[in-house]
Amino acid sequence: MRILIINPNTTASMTHKIAAAASAVAAAKTEVVAVNPADGPASIEGYFDEVFSIPGIIDEMQKAPNMDAYVIACFDDTGLDAARCFTQVPVIGIGEAAFHVASLLAGKFSVITTLARSVPAIENNLMKYGLASRCARVRASEIPVLDLEHSGSESLSKISSEISRAIAEDRAEAIVLGCAGMANLADQLSAKHGLPVIDGVVCAVKLAESLVDLGLRTSKIGGYAPPRAKRFDGQFSRFSPL
Amino acid sequence: MRILIINPNTTASMTHKIAAAASAVAAAKTEVVAVNPADGPASIEGYFDEVFSIPGIIDEMQKAPNMDAYVIACFDDTGLDAARCFTQVPVIGIGEAAFHVASLLAGKFSVITTLARSVPAIENNLMKYGLASRCARVRASEIPVLDLEHSGSESLSKISSEISRAIAEDRAEAIVLGCAGMANLADQLSAKHGLPVIDGVVCAVKLAESLVDLGLRTSKIGGYAPPRAKRFDGQFSRFSPL
Amino acid sequence: MRILIINPNTTASMTHKIAAAASAVAAAKTEVVAVNPADGPASIEGYFDEVFSIPGIIDEMQKAPNMDAYVIACFDDTGLDAARCFTQVPVIGIGEAAFHVASLLAGKFSVITTLARSVPAIENNLMKYGLASRCARVRASEIPVLDLEHSGSESLSKISSEISRAIAEDRAEAIVLGCAGMANLADQLSAKHGLPVIDGVVCAVKLAESLVDLGLRTSKIGGYAPPRAKRFDGQFSRFSPL
Amino acid sequence: MRILIINPNTTASMTHKIAAAASAVAAAKTEVVAVNPADGPASIEGYFDEVFSIPGIIDEMQKAPNMDAYVIACFDDTGLDAARCFTQVPVIGIGEAAFHVASLLAGKFSVITTLARSVPAIENNLMKYGLASRCARVRASEIPVLDLEHSGSESLSKISSEISRAIAEDRAEAIVLGCAGMANLADQLSAKHGLPVIDGVVCAVKLAESLVDLGLRTSKIGGYAPPRAKRFDGQFSRFSPL
Amino acid sequence: MRILIINPNTTASMTHKIAAAASAVAAAKTEVVAVNPADGPASIEGYFDEVFSIPGIIDEMQKAPNMDAYVIACFDDTGLDAARCFTQVPVIGIGEAAFHVASLLAGKFSVITTLARSVPAIENNLMKYGLASRCARVRASEIPVLDLEHSGSESLSKISSEISRAIAEDRAEAIVLGCAGMANLADQLSAKHGLPVIDGVVCAVKLAESLVDLGLRTSKIGGYAPPRAKRFDGQFSRFSPL
Amino acid sequence: MRILIINPNTTASMTHKIAAAASAVAAAKTEVVAVNPADGPASIEGYFDEVFSIPGIIDEMQKAPNMDAYVIACFDDTGLDAARCFTQVPVIGIGEAAFHVASLLAGKFSVITTLARSVPAIENNLMKYGLASRCARVRASEIPVLDLEHSGSESLSKISSEISRAIAEDRAEAIVLGCAGMANLADQLSAKHGLPVIDGVVCAVKLAESLVDLGLRTSKIGGYAPPRAKRFDGQFSRFSPL
Repeated sequence: MRILIINPNTTASMTHKIAAAASAVAAAKTEVVAVNPADGPASIEGYFDEVFSIPGIIDEMQKAPNMDAYVIACFDDTGLDAARCFTQVPVIGIGEAAFHVASLLAGKFSVITTLARSVPAIENNLMKYGLASRCARVRASEIPVLDLEHSGSESLSKISSEISRAIAEDRAEAIVLGCAGMANLADQLSAKHGLPVIDGVVCAVKLAESLVDLGLRTSKIGGYAPPRAKRFDGQFSRFSPL
Repeated sequence: MRILIINPNTTASMTHKIAAAASAVAAAKTEVVAVNPADGPASIEGYFDEVFSIPGIIDEMQKAPNMDAYVIACFDDTGLDAARCFTQVPVIGIGEAAFHVASLLAGKFSVITTLARSVPAIENNLMKYGLASRCARVRASEIPVLDLEHSGSESLSKISSEISRAIAEDRAEAIVLGCAGMANLADQLSAKHGLPVIDGVVCAVKLAESLVDLGLRTSKIGGYAPPRAKRFDGQFSRFSPL
Repeated sequence: MRILIINPNTTASMTHKIAAAASAVAAAKTEVVAVNPADGPASIEGYFDEVFSIPGIIDEMQKAPNMDAYVIACFDDTGLDAARCFTQVPVIGIGEAAFHVASLLAGKFSVITTLARSVPAIENNLMKYGLASRCARVRASEIPVLDLEHSGSESLSKISSEISRAIAEDRAEAIVLGCAGMANLADQLSAKHGLPVIDGVVCAVKLAESLVDLGLRTSKIGGYAPPRAKRFDGQFSRFSPL
Repeated sequence: MRILIINPNTTASMTHKIAAAASAVAAAKTEVVAVNPADGPASIEGYFDEVFSIPGIIDEMQKAPNMDAYVIACFDDTGLDAARCFTQVPVIGIGEAAFHVASLLAGKFSVITTLARSVPAIENNLMKYGLASRCARVRASEIPVLDLEHSGSESLSKISSEISRAIAEDRAEAIVLGCAGMANLADQLSAKHGLPVIDGVVCAVKLAESLVDLGLRTSKIGGYAPPRAKRFDGQFSRFSPL
Repeated sequence: MRILIINPNTTASMTHKIAAAASAVAAAKTEVVAVNPADGPASIEGYFDEVFSIPGIIDEMQKAPNMDAYVIACFDDTGLDAARCFTQVPVIGIGEAAFHVASLLAGKFSVITTLARSVPAIENNLMKYGLASRCARVRASEIPVLDLEHSGSESLSKISSEISRAIAEDRAEAIVLGCAGMANLADQLSAKHGLPVIDGVVCAVKLAESLVDLGLRTSKIGGYAPPRAKRFDGQFSRFSPL
Repeated sequence: MRILIINPNTTASMTHKIAAAASAVAAAKTEVVAVNPADGPASIEGYFDEVFSIPGIIDEMQKAPNMDAYVIACFDDTGLDAARCFTQVPVIGIGEAAFHVASLLAGKFSVITTLARSVPAIENNLMKYGLASRCARVRASEIPVLDLEHSGSESLSKISSEISRAIAEDRAEAIVLGCAGMANLADQLSAKHGLPVIDGVVCAVKLAESLVDLGLRTSKIGGYAPPRAKRFDGQFSRFSPL
């Protein structure tokens, strides 16, 4: 089984971190390939950055068409709906993966993300997925995404403090880490706080493997139907549906 | 006052139709400028097409930076959140404009859109805006977007039939036309069916004028904060926030 | 275009303040007429006061039948549904106007109203309009309505403090002022706090103008159908539908 | 125990029917007094009629101040919030009474009311009470309220047909009769259709007795606080809170 | 009229307390019989304990088949759905009884229960009943259930403190006591805090009496249909439906 | 890895069918053990049957304490909350498993279950899980559970007809089969109807494997905390928490 994990931003160090986390949990039979586009934002922090990462996501999918599944490794699940239209095999976002997994382990979870500006997009996703009632609160640690690449203990400490608040104030029973760049922190935070701390990258890999093993594919009637044949003009003509 | 109306698809005939509808209702003091990107899909029918129209929307905004307000003239409100991050002046989507106006005229409305594949995106928007409880049902007329450019009476007849069903089956008290390409049909359908039939293009123009007249601007704290300074790589480096 | 703005309480000084705010934003072509009933409560603070202002509202509408639109200038949108039944032209409540406008400028808003006793009615309205999910919180400043007529800086200070709390605790991205008597405070509070502060009176005027310009009228099928012909006995026989 | 049942319309024959239904279920110790205002609409069919019945309701309460509880016998629960502000003893609306009782007997119920124009007000009440998720559908029988006073078998037949549809199409497990004028029909319809058919008048009487027996009173902190002392001008000065 | 009140845990002292509370409010004509199973948990604190009390509840119902109504006196409404399938006469849970009664007295209520571990089950019930929007918050006093049998003033003090917080922080207008073991505390807490404090035991008795007086029975179409004839094996063969 | 799959009813042929489905998808390293209690109902059809299967579920867990995960193979997710309290390792219900998987493949799904009497329990679960908004409709095929053990083509035909209706009437994009006894039908129905048809048994196995591979366990703070030490009397004393 081959799974393409697309880090939608252009920061290679984050792609490596994601690849390491994914490979550590992938089944022996699974080949995980992690890529990132060359074009687009160096990090995704809010609505504006999101949209410029999506053509790159589709480009990476087009360059790797024979995958068994795709994972979009941005916690905002950037471009997830478009990617699902573009292929028949499963596509999983790390945000939704974490929410669904948390829902199997706890009545309520809180999310700890990076900047406050990203909170509304996450809240909108939760509402769209139906799982808003399972989320006690989306919290911002106010750590910029790229600081997670090098800041080490300071970031860990900020996230840990926010987890303490989530337990005390939100009555959270589990924590979802709201950024792919936090993938390496889940285990130690879980051990420290005594509750499940969930990283979406590894959840997405296992859910993707599960769907492939079950022979399930994205529904092609309704919202994820293949794009209708039409002209795409200019720079995006490479995506013109046939 | 200058309002830029962006038809996010590349079909100039639709841009002209939108411009005509907008100009017909704009205040004397308002200059309406209607444009469409050269790059992107010829029509927007579902999640996939949407995302490739957004860079073009931002390009058009960047080319016309001194506007008092922007209108995004795709019923899916494609790129609305990103556009709101990109400027301080008001940005209105024609979908949200129609929903808000319908809510001032009727307890419940139904939406008549083009293809069934576009229904989920509209339903998600309604949920995100909070107005899902005001919408009795989103209905598909199964008219492809570009057929609205030339089909004439057949399209009108299909939409009219769907309105009849919305009144009888959904108890709709008003109808929202779910495509910018239907902008020229609202009046005759309203007269025929005896209830408000609402086109989003004209609603968006008046709401944009209203916000400008009131001196109101998009909130810059939270989800619509300006993009953080960062590197945008490759083709989108033209959008790198400073 | 002629718009009748009805202050549903009997306090003329508030009517003058509302008229000034409305006139300042009305289009050149718009004639704004502001009135208040002679009968009813001197201020509207909660469920009980509300109901005794409604016959006066309808009386004022009956006395001015050739208007192009009506605005009900009580933040509770007192009598809005009944007024919509009584006329075909648009009727706008200042509460709903503010909520809809805020929804075009921010993901979430908080409301700052007068007394805590008025909060439940506002929350019920938000739920009925569908916009409860857009409102982070309805806050009481504990300023009685009529104190807004003369207290000056103390009221401003209380409201300003509550705005600070809304930003910090509710993550509000915009503020809605929850009383017609606060119409003159929006601009300075917006400047001070750096986010949109929205007064419903001016919003309602622009929305009413917009609907009139668009030729839209209240739906007459369903809940806003004209009252059925029947006998009204006693003091209200003047309202017997024909 | 003395309970005042107020039929908010001016039709005495309906008051008598309500009194008969109420007396038939009241405890031996309970004295039921049924009244209607002399002023106001002869029947309540939608938002407009509602508001003109409320001063009469409060008048009747003021004329009978030593009651142990009050029942408002209009299915729209007209004036319920205002009445709760006006007294400390329990006030029950027949609509809410029927909804709460139905929720104790069945997972989902459907409502059969009179005219379609009354449906939105009932749906709004259900949402406000929280019980919208328990109501499968609000159905209109298209019987005008006063026809229930004399039409006999035809009305029964229309309601019965609608019940059949509610069972088949809505999967309703119980039926709520949506008009005080249907109070005499519940038993035979229940026997015919083999499911609970619930009239709000009798439910309200028993709930009122229950609250009185339990020594419970309306909360006076929050929305139902007594009206603040203030001037009521003109015809409503008789209601000026002290 | 005979009502069987089943305390689903095995603690006889709590059964006596429940019986005393119930008898104090029952009508003269009502015979209240209070029992508890010999098998099962000594107290019910969360999901696990709940399920082992249900066979005992059904056993007690089977031993007392000629009752006019049944009350399940655990605030989690343990086994309520199963009990409703088992009999045609009304079955009332004390949790739902308290929620419905509170909804007739106040716009919003808060619940004060025993341990935090019981909160999720109560929140799920509120959502299922539809009344979650009426509940401001479910609060834990962190008093174990059986401590209520002997701790006296300390428990009262903890609950009282939590009520103060509910008024200040939740804007609760009424309080629901979230454990049958608190049945004897409602009156003094209501007097102290000046708002309705509601115990579910007495509410359930009056609601059960009301339903019996109205001749209403549980719907037998849908979810509460009698169990289908089938084999029950082993220890539960005594419950095999015929 | 060892997963215990518990069929909560006593019908061994259904256990074998479940075991076959589970084994077909389990990883090579996974040992699937399928059991059913000797005590309890022969099939689970509604609220009443459910509760008598739960002691047997816990008995089976107690008899097999060294499992890595447990699956409860009744579509109502009978006893899921109690089982989660009883162990630290993951417990998955086949209903929730199917709902979560369907949510990764389609915007909306419909459920086809056995009898109408089971629909309310499934709808309640969907609301509790948060996924009600993802489910277009829960449909009953009116096939009794045990008929699925021998009826063959007739059952298949009924389910297939219901799927056709779900696609046409509900706009379902995927189908969830609402009974463990349908586990062998998913593939052929998916092929016939051209959309994902999802069986919960295989989904639960893969989700359980995923959670184990990720080292995730049920949260032990909040609702799934281990039962408090206390006396369990009588037949259930074997479950007394220490």
